[in-house]
Amino acid sequence: MGTAPDDLAGMGEFGFIAALARRLPQGSGVVLGPGDDAAVVAAPDSRVVVTVDVLVEGVHFRSDWAGPDDIGRRAAAASLADIAAMGARPTALVVGFAAPPSTPTAWALRVGDGLRDEAALVGASVVGGDVTSAAQVVLSVTALGDLEGRAPVTRSGARSGDIVALCGRLGWAAGGLAVLRRGFGSPRVLVEAYRRPEPPYAAGIAAAHAGATAMCDISDGLVADLGHMAQASGVVIDLDRSLVPVGEPLTDVAAAYGKNPIEWVLTGGDDHALVATFAADAKLPEGFVVIGGVRPTQGEPRVLVDGEPWSGPGGHTHFSG
Amino acid sequence: MGTAPDDLAGMGEFGFIAALARRLPQGSGVVLGPGDDAAVVAAPDSRVVVTVDVLVEGVHFRSDWAGPDDIGRRAAAASLADIAAMGARPTALVVGFAAPPSTPTAWALRVGDGLRDEAALVGASVVGGDVTSAAQVVLSVTALGDLEGRAPVTRSGARSGDIVALCGRLGWAAGGLAVLRRGFGSPRVLVEAYRRPEPPYAAGIAAAHAGATAMCDISDGLVADLGHMAQASGVVIDLDRSLVPVGEPLTDVAAAYGKNPIEWVLTGGDDHALVATFAADAKLPEGFVVIGGVRPTQGEPRVLVDGEPWSGPGGHTHFSG
Repeated sequence: MGTAPDDLAGMGEFGFIAALARRLPQGSGVVLGPGDDAAVVAAPDSRVVVTVDVLVEGVHFRSDWAGPDDIGRRAAAASLADIAAMGARPTALVVGFAAPPSTPTAWALRVGDGLRDEAALVGASVVGGDVTSAAQVVLSVTALGDLEGRAPVTRSGARSGDIVALCGRLGWAAGGLAVLRRGFGSPRVLVEAYRRPEPPYAAGIAAAHAGATAMCDISDGLVADLGHMAQASGVVIDLDRSLVPVGEPLTDVAAAYGKNPIEWVLTGGDDHALVATFAADAKLPEGFVVIGGVRPTQGEPRVLVDGEPWSGPGGHTHFSG
Repeated sequence: MGTAPDDLAGMGEFGFIAALARRLPQGSGVVLGPGDDAAVVAAPDSRVVVTVDVLVEGVHFRSDWAGPDDIGRRAAAASLADIAAMGARPTALVVGFAAPPSTPTAWALRVGDGLRDEAALVGASVVGGDVTSAAQVVLSVTALGDLEGRAPVTRSGARSGDIVALCGRLGWAAGGLAVLRRGFGSPRVLVEAYRRPEPPYAAGIAAAHAGATAMCDISDGLVADLGHMAQASGVVIDLDRSLVPVGEPLTDVAAAYGKNPIEWVLTGGDDHALVATFAADAKLPEGFVVIGGVRPTQGEPRVLVDGEPWSGPGGHTHFSG
């Protein structure tokens, strides 16, 4: 294959890794950073929280719709939000990066910058990775986190009588994607929400402190992810549509497109908002708004919207159309 | 796209994940296994060792050359050997799995079985993962490990006067690959060595106990990986070719192919043998054989073979031809 000095083939695997590592500052919790067979990260709680998310070019992102920094940030955000959703503090990322040899080195380095910068928002470091060639760009981001002595907040703890509360933007990324799909670049606030989600990381720990009984990040869509929570907890979760916030730019764009913005809000992924259940008398942490309640099952655990099963489109799933 | 009940598209993302999770027993060190936003794994040392390796179809494996169990085992072995090479005990894997929607479910589940079975060899569990669609199969395996109170053994600790010692088969996987590339299936012992490497996991901890000053697993080839160690340690590593074990099946096949087997031994990756340096008076752990020594640099840190720079082919690198 042809090589050019400014693509990955020209630079070579080891040259690229060295250039990447130079751009990655290591935080105080990193015992041993990049450059060895493995990294070593402090785990003061004596338990470590771990999750992986894979982003694939053409499936999760298009490089004509988002710059390399944004792609790196989105990939990091997906995993960091999962750590936050357990009520943990993110500490480190390791990244598997597969790309065609013709990928420009500058583009690939800026993906690394995006990963680094998103991790830095929560005090985490990119401590290692693996780089290889593939037909399409694949980013596999593993995040580690520390529970700081708290119990993990799982999906299975929602109890009848709990309230359901949401923190973070919802449907904005889906709205931004709809805009990009039609070939537009505005409203910019929605396009930016798609390119660079802003998960409410700190809210995860705050919710754990406030006694959240169950929590998850919304990556498949609110109805789909609450469905997983209802299943795991063996309860019915009833959303009150009038309580679910619909951002103003969503309303405007939906009107222009002849769409109902509630569909983006109820089924859009990629915003990485957090949804949690709390005892009815809990003091909700800042940023959380009540959107429904938890009821006992009569039959199957499931999600209802205003008392009815959701009949609109589902959340995003892979493989099935 | 078309779907069939027995492929990933027909089963769907969540159905496949549920089927996979049912096949994954969780060890005693797993606080919270698959099914939530993240898993929680015990880290009794209060430091966690972490590494990721990415295997790509057509680059690292061909599904006509290895069955799904073997592909899963190889992917797990690559990461588990990195943990062992730090002198740590592997505890858990999380796996990013990307595959075309037309991938048969049974094939994908057996990849999971292979990951599970290789992890079980060292008492580790597959605690989580992410599944998505992609044009080619990509396996990203993150391994975690526990140092059990020991210092990590890095690549940078080799000192002038140390001896260099090897544990495990070397060149066998490269020999097996050469056999497969010519369309043959025997000698079976080499083909199996390629399909299913057998890293000497326990030797990593034993080497740490024996005071190894530096260690790494051999995934890029002996000369290439010792080159990294020489660079990181600022030393010259001198291999004695007559001491490097050349397996009998390698000699036989190389003779038949008109090849010199030492090339497979010095530059072949994929066996995941361990190479370490020790003080000259150290008592070597079982299975390690001396293959050379460490000398001060006069100029650049590098590897010599019988006192000369290696002029044969290098180890495997990605991107550069």
